[in-house]
Amino acid sequence: MDVIQALKERRSINFFDPERSIPDDTLKELLEIANLAPSSFNLQPWKVIAVKDRGRKKVLRRCAFDQPKVEEAPVVLIIVADPMGVEENRNAVIESNIELGYMKPEATESTLGMIQTLYGPPNSPQRKVFAVKNASLFAMSVMVAARGLGLETHPMDGFDEGAIKKEFGIPNDKIVPMIIAVGYMKPGVTLLPRAYRRKVEDFVRFE
Amino acid sequence: MDVIQALKERRSINFFDPERSIPDDTLKELLEIANLAPSSFNLQPWKVIAVKDRGRKKVLRRCAFDQPKVEEAPVVLIIVADPMGVEENRNAVIESNIELGYMKPEATESTLGMIQTLYGPPNSPQRKVFAVKNASLFAMSVMVAARGLGLETHPMDGFDEGAIKKEFGIPNDKIVPMIIAVGYMKPGVTLLPRAYRRKVEDFVRFE
Repeated sequence: MDVIQALKERRSINFFDPERSIPDDTLKELLEIANLAPSSFNLQPWKVIAVKDRGRKKVLRRCAFDQPKVEEAPVVLIIVADPMGVEENRNAVIESNIELGYMKPEATESTLGMIQTLYGPPNSPQRKVFAVKNASLFAMSVMVAARGLGLETHPMDGFDEGAIKKEFGIPNDKIVPMIIAVGYMKPGVTLLPRAYRRKVEDFVRFE
Repeated sequence: MDVIQALKERRSINFFDPERSIPDDTLKELLEIANLAPSSFNLQPWKVIAVKDRGRKKVLRRCAFDQPKVEEAPVVLIIVADPMGVEENRNAVIESNIELGYMKPEATESTLGMIQTLYGPPNSPQRKVFAVKNASLFAMSVMVAARGLGLETHPMDGFDEGAIKKEFGIPNDKIVPMIIAVGYMKPGVTLLPRAYRRKVEDFVRFE
């Protein structure tokens, strides 16, 4: 599918075919492709819980204001934004950057210093912005990649974040910016016309 | 261009052709397509300053730790996440939702109540997460749409946010999660191999 068409025809789908599951290989491919999203200093501060089990989806549905699509979609991804992604991934990223020729070993200290300056200590407000923005770049990539694999999605933030953290063992310092239902559209469903968007001149200023 | 190929081949480009500008129509098309990104309750809490002017790019470069690509790329987009997107857009969104058949008029009050519950009052921490996540969905859509229009991008968060706000008249309650250089790749440049990514099993748990 053409990339512009994929973006133009991507819609948030309310009706998934509950009879049609996603093959494991397809789900893995989806996550692998989405994981090519860029991130701050390539720190990739996101994690995913891919909920496929019927019983676990029931639990998730209860955390998500009883939205039927949470149970009807074959997979629901809990997107986890991790403010500790800095500490967790910086060594592997820097090591690989040196190996691939992106930076010289002697730049390690200044790179770590810049990361520290920009994102502050764990629990700082900058860390929250850092984690959420990057996890959302990943999330959008999931939704676009899905189109290329014949899948539909629906991002949701109508849920009780505390309940999801409790039920799915997510530590309290993490943020769940959204959950994404993934699956195949229910046959015979007709979509409403695309919802309201502002005109370019209403949200862009050219300088 | 195929959507999967677009995602797999998207790279953060350091070398833009400074001689090649983006036609106004193409830039507008890019922003229009990216603006189809989904958002919380379709509230679209993002704004963009598209910096094209040579002098203004010089100013922006000074705010961005003197990164040459800020001046070399023909356009740099300042992505603005707006916590006040709730108040600004909710009426237009609800009106259109009723018109298009997404909701009944009598659901207006409960919808507004749910928005209030989820995102809290202006200046609340939830509002920051709300604004940043949605603006980042838009930002990723810009980077993907660019590929379909033959353009390359580079998202940056190496900048002094306070300086950008001051120089570009962005009110202090807004957040600038990133700026994105957009343009054409400099001829003759060879990219390094793609940087490190974790394996699926390192960031996904299946349940």
